[in-house]
Amino acid sequence: MTDFATTKALFHLPEGMIYLDGNSLGPLPKTAATRVTRTVEAEWGEMLITGWNKAGWMAQPSVLGDRIGRLIGAEPGHVTTGDTLSIKVYQALAAALEMRPDRRVILSDNGNFPSDLYMAEGLLRQLGSGYELRVVDPDQVADALTDEIAVMMLTQVDYRTGRMHDMADLTARAHAVGALTVWDLAHSAGAFPVHLARDGADFAVGCTYKYLNAGPGAPAFIYVAPRHAERVQPALSGWLGHEAPFAFDLDYRPGARIERMRVGTPPVLQMAALEASLDIWDQVDLDDLRAASVALCEQFIAGVEATCPDLVLASPRDAAQRGSQVSFHFADGYAAMQALIAHGVIGDFRAPDIMRFGFTPLFIDAGDVDQAIAILGEIMRDRLWDREAYKIRAAVT
Amino acid sequence: MTDFATTKALFHLPEGMIYLDGNSLGPLPKTAATRVTRTVEAEWGEMLITGWNKAGWMAQPSVLGDRIGRLIGAEPGHVTTGDTLSIKVYQALAAALEMRPDRRVILSDNGNFPSDLYMAEGLLRQLGSGYELRVVDPDQVADALTDEIAVMMLTQVDYRTGRMHDMADLTARAHAVGALTVWDLAHSAGAFPVHLARDGADFAVGCTYKYLNAGPGAPAFIYVAPRHAERVQPALSGWLGHEAPFAFDLDYRPGARIERMRVGTPPVLQMAALEASLDIWDQVDLDDLRAASVALCEQFIAGVEATCPDLVLASPRDAAQRGSQVSFHFADGYAAMQALIAHGVIGDFRAPDIMRFGFTPLFIDAGDVDQAIAILGEIMRDRLWDREAYKIRAAVT
Repeated sequence: MTDFATTKALFHLPEGMIYLDGNSLGPLPKTAATRVTRTVEAEWGEMLITGWNKAGWMAQPSVLGDRIGRLIGAEPGHVTTGDTLSIKVYQALAAALEMRPDRRVILSDNGNFPSDLYMAEGLLRQLGSGYELRVVDPDQVADALTDEIAVMMLTQVDYRTGRMHDMADLTARAHAVGALTVWDLAHSAGAFPVHLARDGADFAVGCTYKYLNAGPGAPAFIYVAPRHAERVQPALSGWLGHEAPFAFDLDYRPGARIERMRVGTPPVLQMAALEASLDIWDQVDLDDLRAASVALCEQFIAGVEATCPDLVLASPRDAAQRGSQVSFHFADGYAAMQALIAHGVIGDFRAPDIMRFGFTPLFIDAGDVDQAIAILGEIMRDRLWDREAYKIRAAVT
Repeated sequence: MTDFATTKALFHLPEGMIYLDGNSLGPLPKTAATRVTRTVEAEWGEMLITGWNKAGWMAQPSVLGDRIGRLIGAEPGHVTTGDTLSIKVYQALAAALEMRPDRRVILSDNGNFPSDLYMAEGLLRQLGSGYELRVVDPDQVADALTDEIAVMMLTQVDYRTGRMHDMADLTARAHAVGALTVWDLAHSAGAFPVHLARDGADFAVGCTYKYLNAGPGAPAFIYVAPRHAERVQPALSGWLGHEAPFAFDLDYRPGARIERMRVGTPPVLQMAALEASLDIWDQVDLDDLRAASVALCEQFIAGVEATCPDLVLASPRDAAQRGSQVSFHFADGYAAMQALIAHGVIGDFRAPDIMRFGFTPLFIDAGDVDQAIAILGEIMRDRLWDREAYKIRAAVT
């Protein structure tokens, strides 16, 4: 059994704050500061250029990739880290499209994170005429899978509502029409158990600054299924994805398997913070995590619905169809969220009217949820947001 | 007058080490550890998600871009930072090619850093048939500029020999045939004054972990000339290059000027180290730097030629044609370099036979150069490398 009281003690959480925004930026693991300082002072400072080998900087992207791999059900040796999520989306999408040269359509949905759609637009413009990005409603994806589709690119969990796609089902449907799949795990990795290998995913990408708690600007990750790993042709063919980066050949030869999805030099300081955050994850059983996450979300939904009749649930009521967040519609949601933040409960707001709360058992417990419900209830009852919103607006201008 | 004794005291240099490899990875600015720790503890730890605005993380890529801009002669507001150099090469190249839709050839030279050529290969494969990457000898570039050339992509300073291209001259020649230019400043920025605006460069890219001393994995930078800034169409169209990232529109609209060359979330911890390194650069006059760099290089060439007759100068003898490094050919260069490193003088080796030494007046002075010459002379005279190379090989296996 994972002991979440123990994991909670491993995070620095500001005094008096209930942080329900770990789905946007996870909090600081207490060891991260020491770990980063070690990298700065003892590695960069003392080893200088030899740190690439001596401190393991060069190998770290794939060493850490494997530790993430356990959390997302990937086969060992098939995940690497680096760059940003947008870059990794581009890599996965370009590689998948190149494997379906007779097809021209990327299928996605309007619940996808916009940057994924933007990256697809940019890629398709490079590829020239005849290509199409087809964006449908989330519940229309299954029906839109036809033999025109080269790649189905989806973010598994909707960043606004927490609505979760069924990865196994949609992947099987995509494969049935000959399409490949790119899954964005931004709101999945560290939120619940993901089973990339079991569910047959072809490509997956994600970030590490949300549920994985690796800090602002933490590197992204990418997964390529073993059956494709030696066939993909990197579009972003940088030297660290080369078979022999230090041979300095003039021609590109892709590296072995996932190594070819590396591009430039890894962000060593960010990697150190990621390592500290993964030290905590190594202690977590993901089934325990899911059970605790569902309990916290259910507790929050029940409590808010009992005390705040004006808030309308925007997330699926069925926990099986929900990630690790709960969202409510409320017309004055922006102002109410500012008031809530001013009272020490941190969630966030997404246009036009969504108040969003992330539940992360690693550092949020039932007592925090009770308190958050009580404070939110008080704000809604006394309509505290008008006054508070005004205060905040005044502070900004 | 820049006081280089003062700047030297601002770096942590390991006891007894003469570090002539700042052209590969610059040393640690003493304030960087404190600066990074502040970002980890006081910003990430205490501000959490609000750090994006409160700590200035969101604006930092372009704020720091402008401070780099001064070092490379860019107009304010036209440099931004992020990603890796390979990614920035791809962005610049894709944007430049799209501005010359009737042309199909990228011209480069075989002294370019291989990753730049690899990224061009990957891009051209996306663009489809008819495109060509034409790679000539460095001294053939001017003659190879014809009206077929869409983009001339060059690294200004050869990473092996330090040979420097004449940016003003080649840019003018490229423009005369209607080509655009992409200059890679990896071995230029912080090595000597660069004059992008004066010399008419169209695009420029570079890294900050070499002469700029921003640490392992430090972000790259990109420059787009003001006359092109609102015309370029980003191929890597990520949300932070969007006109309104937090509107979460489904369609991409490029941001203002250089902001559109941002892609994903910035590497905040690496940015903190970059900020510390730029605090030192703010004190440096680049003409003083160039004068001091030339003096150190001349001193080293004269000293080595006097004491090591087996070493043959690989760099241009004329300082005006040389960056801030000096290289020598020597058949046993790899082993000799290992011996030199074992004796506390850090340079590096590039196949097949190049011993490479970087000179960075910010933390290397004439006394260091004298010592380096003396130690290298001793190693060469006593042929110390056989024994040392054996020791090192034994340690590796």
